[in-house]
Amino acid sequence: MKLGIPKETLAGERRVATTPEVAKKLVAKGFEVLVEAGAGVAAHYRDAAYTEAGVQVVERDACFSADLVLKVRRPSDDEARAVRSGSVYISLVEGCGDDPLLSRMVENGVQVLAMERMPRISRAQSMDALSSQSNIAGYRAVIEAASHYGRFFPMMMTSAGSAKPARLVVLGAGVAGLQAIATARRLGADVLAYDVRPETKEQIASLGAKPIELDLGESGAGEGGYAKELSDEAKARQQQLLGDELAKAHVIITTALIPCRPAPELITTEVVERMRTGSVIVDLAAANGGNCKLSEPDQVIDHQGVIIVGHTNYPSMVPADASAFYAKNLSNLLEIMVEPSDSGPVLRDLTEDEITAAMLIAR
Amino acid sequence: MKLGIPKETLAGERRVATTPEVAKKLVAKGFEVLVEAGAGVAAHYRDAAYTEAGVQVVERDACFSADLVLKVRRPSDDEARAVRSGSVYISLVEGCGDDPLLSRMVENGVQVLAMERMPRISRAQSMDALSSQSNIAGYRAVIEAASHYGRFFPMMMTSAGSAKPARLVVLGAGVAGLQAIATARRLGADVLAYDVRPETKEQIASLGAKPIELDLGESGAGEGGYAKELSDEAKARQQQLLGDELAKAHVIITTALIPCRPAPELITTEVVERMRTGSVIVDLAAANGGNCKLSEPDQVIDHQGVIIVGHTNYPSMVPADASAFYAKNLSNLLEIMVEPSDSGPVLRDLTEDEITAAMLIAR
Repeated sequence: MKLGIPKETLAGERRVATTPEVAKKLVAKGFEVLVEAGAGVAAHYRDAAYTEAGVQVVERDACFSADLVLKVRRPSDDEARAVRSGSVYISLVEGCGDDPLLSRMVENGVQVLAMERMPRISRAQSMDALSSQSNIAGYRAVIEAASHYGRFFPMMMTSAGSAKPARLVVLGAGVAGLQAIATARRLGADVLAYDVRPETKEQIASLGAKPIELDLGESGAGEGGYAKELSDEAKARQQQLLGDELAKAHVIITTALIPCRPAPELITTEVVERMRTGSVIVDLAAANGGNCKLSEPDQVIDHQGVIIVGHTNYPSMVPADASAFYAKNLSNLLEIMVEPSDSGPVLRDLTEDEITAAMLIAR
Repeated sequence: MKLGIPKETLAGERRVATTPEVAKKLVAKGFEVLVEAGAGVAAHYRDAAYTEAGVQVVERDACFSADLVLKVRRPSDDEARAVRSGSVYISLVEGCGDDPLLSRMVENGVQVLAMERMPRISRAQSMDALSSQSNIAGYRAVIEAASHYGRFFPMMMTSAGSAKPARLVVLGAGVAGLQAIATARRLGADVLAYDVRPETKEQIASLGAKPIELDLGESGAGEGGYAKELSDEAKARQQQLLGDELAKAHVIITTALIPCRPAPELITTEVVERMRTGSVIVDLAAANGGNCKLSEPDQVIDHQGVIIVGHTNYPSMVPADASAFYAKNLSNLLEIMVEPSDSGPVLRDLTEDEITAAMLIAR
């Protein structure tokens, strides 16, 4: 069974769907692994390292004629057409609602598996790419904040006087938010965190941060551990009550994303204008409209002395480990997709396992 | 007595020689403080904050007609000419050997005090700008390294597998090096450090890093706590013995600077080429020729997959705290330069105190 891993083509995307280390294990399990020449370079994995791992480094076309095509990001039009009938395509497909591109692939006889549809059950945890990549985003967002912040994060006692620790607020305590809290605490910041789901308080506190508690009159806990959208009334109240906490913050990391919905606006222009000059907002939801009114996707802006960072692809800024984790997610998924045979691994019926069944894009 | 603080004019310099907080104390002591309009903006200090602190926000010329002119960086030709006879000029003058610009100022009747000539005695510690700014550079260098490194610094145990901590080597255990060690440890890296002065071993170990020990046949301890230049033979041996340690590093922060001498070359091209792809070298000595053969001042280069960062002004990348510490250094220095009188502070004879005497530029 051939696995094809083409180079990612989306602008700025540095990840790759497998690494030499993971590929080596796949080869040992009987897969033929084909990686496009140069596919790993931006993630610091050289062609020579793949070759050493038993991978065949090939031209782009050969990857698309494999039995399984593994990618990180949504297929381009060209890529969707290149995947041949009878094969399986797996990536973050980044689709919401009707999706003609993916429907066409399915109609052409491709089984399309969406990594973001991974069910949130414990059996699937090791395959959950949203989770593994969010973890990296949370870490990198804090490094980004520290690099834009004109002051120390930790408290400093020096002979030239002392500096107070940065007051850092994390909005959203999912995987990204929790890792942001942990990283900011490592760097010595005073951390506060807010999430609409009350059950996150304990996790926030266990990482050494202070949970911000607001009385909204309703809970934001939705299905499957994700946040759900609040009523308009609760949203307005949330903004008002949060405002004072946020205006006092020196650094804000926002991670409040709701799948296939515009990101909730948690930071108004008025709040930004009340913040101390030199404060930094890192908006992890900038691609979905932003948690901050003023965020611009893929831009760093200065609004009256407050720096608002709208990068939209943090995992790609830590490409070696992000690729390693993603590759591991895929390889764990492959384990439940195939069964061994004398002639190597053979594809199972993907509708039979609840995990792959949930991931399959319907016609 | 008037203190004039002009806006810095050197390209990329964001610091300012006083902050509203420090200025307020100077005003309380009877100084008239004049700050050029906009001088603090790049360091996140607004004109309005200076005004509130009792500062007069003025045009540029007014700053240069003050009794004392306080700056961060070396004066430009225009600035040197603008300082009037009979006044005192203080900044990092960044001069080595013969310096016609400074000589002319002295000949014109200006008393020029060089902040980098601060004697290394305990009485002067709170005035030592090289030290306060190096501390900031060491911190910021680690943030910079983390932002360029394609992997996590800390060890990560996740459901998608684990990541090992980054192996980080700090070269030079002066103020910058020790702060780099402390910051990298905070972020969870495994840290090793090397310095030619054997007495630094204990300090390195006390921060949780492992001292690298090499047998060079001579000590690099120089006068006043600074490092001295090694013999050619000892240098060659150092390079060879260090080579293996460095080639294994994932991140290197180099801080080996010798005042008014080219920086020692500690990382050869051969060593860079033995490092893992995606490794990062942050060269704090890039302005003085670099500790790494391949460093380019103010550039980030990629040499066969190794990223070499040559920024030359890290304190300016943390401008709010760097300015605050520098302003504090100056204000502590001013305390020994003046004596109170009924008409406010009066300048003392600067040749009488060993500190100011050591800082004075001779004709």
